[in-house]
Amino acid sequence: MIIVFKHDASEEQVQAVVTRITELGMSPHLSKGIARTLLGAIGDEKILNAHPVDAMPGVERVIPVLKPYKLASREFKRENTIIDLGDGVLVGGPRFEVMAGPCAVESREQTLEIADILKGFGVRILRGGAFKPRTSPYAFQGLGEKGLKILAEARERTGMKIITEVLDADDAPMVAEHADVLQIGARNMQNFALLQRVGRLQRPVMLKRGMSSTIQELLLAAEYILKEGNSLVMLCERGIKTFEPATRNTFDISALPILKYESHLPVIADPSHATGIGYVIPPVALASMAAGADGVMVEVHNHPEKALCDGHQAVQPAPFHDMLEKLRTLAPAVGRTF
Amino acid sequence: MIIVFKHDASEEQVQAVVTRITELGMSPHLSKGIARTLLGAIGDEKILNAHPVDAMPGVERVIPVLKPYKLASREFKRENTIIDLGDGVLVGGPRFEVMAGPCAVESREQTLEIADILKGFGVRILRGGAFKPRTSPYAFQGLGEKGLKILAEARERTGMKIITEVLDADDAPMVAEHADVLQIGARNMQNFALLQRVGRLQRPVMLKRGMSSTIQELLLAAEYILKEGNSLVMLCERGIKTFEPATRNTFDISALPILKYESHLPVIADPSHATGIGYVIPPVALASMAAGADGVMVEVHNHPEKALCDGHQAVQPAPFHDMLEKLRTLAPAVGRTF
Amino acid sequence: MIIVFKHDASEEQVQAVVTRITELGMSPHLSKGIARTLLGAIGDEKILNAHPVDAMPGVERVIPVLKPYKLASREFKRENTIIDLGDGVLVGGPRFEVMAGPCAVESREQTLEIADILKGFGVRILRGGAFKPRTSPYAFQGLGEKGLKILAEARERTGMKIITEVLDADDAPMVAEHADVLQIGARNMQNFALLQRVGRLQRPVMLKRGMSSTIQELLLAAEYILKEGNSLVMLCERGIKTFEPATRNTFDISALPILKYESHLPVIADPSHATGIGYVIPPVALASMAAGADGVMVEVHNHPEKALCDGHQAVQPAPFHDMLEKLRTLAPAVGRTF
Amino acid sequence: MIIVFKHDASEEQVQAVVTRITELGMSPHLSKGIARTLLGAIGDEKILNAHPVDAMPGVERVIPVLKPYKLASREFKRENTIIDLGDGVLVGGPRFEVMAGPCAVESREQTLEIADILKGFGVRILRGGAFKPRTSPYAFQGLGEKGLKILAEARERTGMKIITEVLDADDAPMVAEHADVLQIGARNMQNFALLQRVGRLQRPVMLKRGMSSTIQELLLAAEYILKEGNSLVMLCERGIKTFEPATRNTFDISALPILKYESHLPVIADPSHATGIGYVIPPVALASMAAGADGVMVEVHNHPEKALCDGHQAVQPAPFHDMLEKLRTLAPAVGRTF
Repeated sequence: MIIVFKHDASEEQVQAVVTRITELGMSPHLSKGIARTLLGAIGDEKILNAHPVDAMPGVERVIPVLKPYKLASREFKRENTIIDLGDGVLVGGPRFEVMAGPCAVESREQTLEIADILKGFGVRILRGGAFKPRTSPYAFQGLGEKGLKILAEARERTGMKIITEVLDADDAPMVAEHADVLQIGARNMQNFALLQRVGRLQRPVMLKRGMSSTIQELLLAAEYILKEGNSLVMLCERGIKTFEPATRNTFDISALPILKYESHLPVIADPSHATGIGYVIPPVALASMAAGADGVMVEVHNHPEKALCDGHQAVQPAPFHDMLEKLRTLAPAVGRTF
Repeated sequence: MIIVFKHDASEEQVQAVVTRITELGMSPHLSKGIARTLLGAIGDEKILNAHPVDAMPGVERVIPVLKPYKLASREFKRENTIIDLGDGVLVGGPRFEVMAGPCAVESREQTLEIADILKGFGVRILRGGAFKPRTSPYAFQGLGEKGLKILAEARERTGMKIITEVLDADDAPMVAEHADVLQIGARNMQNFALLQRVGRLQRPVMLKRGMSSTIQELLLAAEYILKEGNSLVMLCERGIKTFEPATRNTFDISALPILKYESHLPVIADPSHATGIGYVIPPVALASMAAGADGVMVEVHNHPEKALCDGHQAVQPAPFHDMLEKLRTLAPAVGRTF
Repeated sequence: MIIVFKHDASEEQVQAVVTRITELGMSPHLSKGIARTLLGAIGDEKILNAHPVDAMPGVERVIPVLKPYKLASREFKRENTIIDLGDGVLVGGPRFEVMAGPCAVESREQTLEIADILKGFGVRILRGGAFKPRTSPYAFQGLGEKGLKILAEARERTGMKIITEVLDADDAPMVAEHADVLQIGARNMQNFALLQRVGRLQRPVMLKRGMSSTIQELLLAAEYILKEGNSLVMLCERGIKTFEPATRNTFDISALPILKYESHLPVIADPSHATGIGYVIPPVALASMAAGADGVMVEVHNHPEKALCDGHQAVQPAPFHDMLEKLRTLAPAVGRTF
Repeated sequence: MIIVFKHDASEEQVQAVVTRITELGMSPHLSKGIARTLLGAIGDEKILNAHPVDAMPGVERVIPVLKPYKLASREFKRENTIIDLGDGVLVGGPRFEVMAGPCAVESREQTLEIADILKGFGVRILRGGAFKPRTSPYAFQGLGEKGLKILAEARERTGMKIITEVLDADDAPMVAEHADVLQIGARNMQNFALLQRVGRLQRPVMLKRGMSSTIQELLLAAEYILKEGNSLVMLCERGIKTFEPATRNTFDISALPILKYESHLPVIADPSHATGIGYVIPPVALASMAAGADGVMVEVHNHPEKALCDGHQAVQPAPFHDMLEKLRTLAPAVGRTF
């Protein structure tokens, strides 16, 4: 940590900070210049969370040097984390994984029909929301537990793995009973009660980046889960809020290589929620594979104009199949299997 | 709702949409031009939430016309909502209200000391967090129920009203027992489980705008609470995420007159979290009063350099007292009492 | 400047940086810790602009400590700069100044009519665009030199001072002949050729913040003008681009106190371009005065529905007069005259 | 264009708008509902630029339906524009093109050395700045005309095509004499004087997206050039300003397929300026090819630690060569040659 003093900080103010730093068990290194005095403080920066040196008189600002997360960092764990969902489905390994399915579980018939189609395309992970977070209270909110049971039936029928969102900490055990991967949605990325609850389950979790969260905040949210003892976390880039109105959000392609560099956790791309435009989803999915994502999550619906949720951004089975073919062609060129 | 067709939409595609609109009980009005065909659909637009006409072939985009919220709107209720906290403390009336106190309840001694000071300054609502949402899992997370009891003691001792955050839906009843106003923090603005839970309590709620939420999304989040039957909602502007690094967030001053125009609910400004800089808080508080806010929430700490949370953005009692004096001078010039 | 080394930087890499820093005439201060090595470099940081130490092996990042601007800073000049436009019109002094007028000079008749009205209201500075930067090439681009002559006639007739935009560096001398203040628009804030050209004229300049520019970038743009020898610069906050669609831009109210704190230059607020909504302009103008702005610029049009430019955001004379009355009431409460 | 009336608009107000629309030669279609009255106006929407119907009483808002640009749109020209730079270098055709070179022309020796290296790697277009737009007036501003002559020498020596930035409209003819492609930088995307000047030259132009410009604003800026008669325009995505601090800007990968869909103009990606991080540039370059870009521009420097400009974001020759090899492997998988 570096402490920058105000240009008119007094000698007493500087000494008071040096004393405080020393009391906190850190080692101070003072550099006095004509324009500014600097103080490097070497030691455990987390101590400073509870001791706001930046509020001391004479201090202009405090610049942290170390990463504020630990368990999620590649400095802590060098090798990639690979999450085993069973039956050879390994997220974060050499094989690129596709998660696909409707935005919401709308009915047993619709879910089984699309599951059969996706299974036939070679997709191994089925997505579908039973609990839906909706901006408007007047929008369809999901089938709840009934939806979970439909997903469980689809799993039994097709052998596909299931990923579905958990909205409420109280529902986490029930969702964990029916799903292979628990999804934490973007709006809940900083719902710390929920993060801690899924951190206490031994069940894979996919944590979506909040639409206004920095990459560092995403890693700190993952740290909440890891710290509780659950190391099976995958991260998901799904677009951030910007001024550009052409897409629903702005997909941050650079986040993919940065997350792979900073962290050992698998990284999934969600071009459906990021872009919200059917024809933009396949090129962004291909780009995500090229940029190093371990997988992609895509909304597919066989009758998008009847979808109860986000129909306009669903890809239909035929163009989705085209996209899979393109991903298959691309994979070996970037060193992946698929 | 207006449906804009693609420039090469076929006659059949247009007719299919007209038929669908009619089936949904809306009244279609077709306008054919050389470059584009438009279809105005008059009726209950909420029906469209579950019927994505924008996914039908030939449709370029669908433009909603009506506001998606109802109970929160001034079209629904003309006169200002005034929330009575008892003992003459009315939020949303002619008197400007100041909520002040430490970021977190750190100890009984600290809380009672600052409560006494603020009471002496004429502040009528005490803030203080017992449950703290923190970006880092290594930061101080609050005293929990013990903190609530300290706040209750401060209330009894000073007669001040208490506002404190509820983080977890399960804690809502316990918090409601000790607090006069339940605060929903920015990170939880779209925690729909929590919104619905506080919507079922008959207790005033202050809903903070998410740092990446639009004004419309804030009003839709308020709608979740109102729809459950709790009409005692106040809105809080606390800054949005932008590219500007000089302040913690960018305080959206325009949101104040827009919220007052679009909604009947009281509007509070929080310059502490928005700016994160001590010397910027008083001018933004004054600006908020001038722009029409019904009150302001400010973090005050008597020993900011020892604060366990956000010490750098806390105002000390002396400059806070100056700020109150300036607000008192300003109030009559903008038609408020204080 | 502080240099943070990678956690696995070698001793040789660290020494190479120490040697480079010393060669550049700076004084190095090394702090070695378990997790990271830091190097404080004390001296003229501008040297580093041409010597990218951050590209040297082993360096993780370089953190500047000093402000990159000098002439614009309050450390360089303590007292407020007051710009004298003649006849007692002093921008940056105790009197709050209002600049008002139409978006564009559309005709001689329209301009003189509105100038007479504004003069009658006590406004002392008339705004009006002769050269208009328009996002679309199909929009009205201004009357050019003819417009300048109309403005000069309005000045002669009313005694008001004139502010108008200069778009092209080549036009700067011609505009300077007719105008009291040259305006640099938001889209040209980093048109460095234009900044340098107006820097060589001894004529007051109002520099508008670019809609995607940080406060620091605005001060660096001002530095371009100051460095050429023109010290008559006023800064203008006019809103930044964010995700919020309710307003044209997001007015950054915090920028007002920050600019006043960091710089000695006068600061003007432009709520018209920032918000683009008629009813939001007066409360944001009042808020700007309360937050410490030295003046406000507002678009006023007597027939907005016939305006050739930005009619929807123009305030009509009657509500503008109301706004002036409110500013007059507010001014003494915040220590200004008006 | 659709006109939405306020819920309490009077019959007279509605009729006044209908009359105005009719006078303007547009065809009005009125739809009256219980909650709102709508008016569809079919005709040339550009007329409305000069006739702000949204300022008429009773109007809530006006929603444009047609794209505001024409010459840049794919509706106007179906087939891809291919820009022939001579010697078989065709931008926008099946072959992916790489533009590479240093940020700035620093010296004859440095430029010829890097040109020889890049030529050896098969790169056909050399970039290098002679005029540098720099945020700080204290940073290196480029060699000017001397730099242009060095670039011309590199062209003669290697046969490579040259792309370089033009900053000032007055310099455009001089730059056009020495360069094959004129670059308009992000900060000048809305420097309309400059756009018009290069529009009058018959020389290829690469127009970079402003860091706060929407995709639509980029296309409108291209329209300025096209409208003057120069149809040789390529567009360049180089990142937009967002709240994410990990990268210099946020590369908007979705802009690539959207620009290709909306426009016939070639699209180039610039991952160097977008990300500013050496290790992030190659994956974003690969992603850009996968998402449909026609080429990529990358800053390469053989001694980045001595670069006078942006050394930290320059890729060194060896990793750049690796990146080219990966692009060569990827190209056939996405249907390109390279």
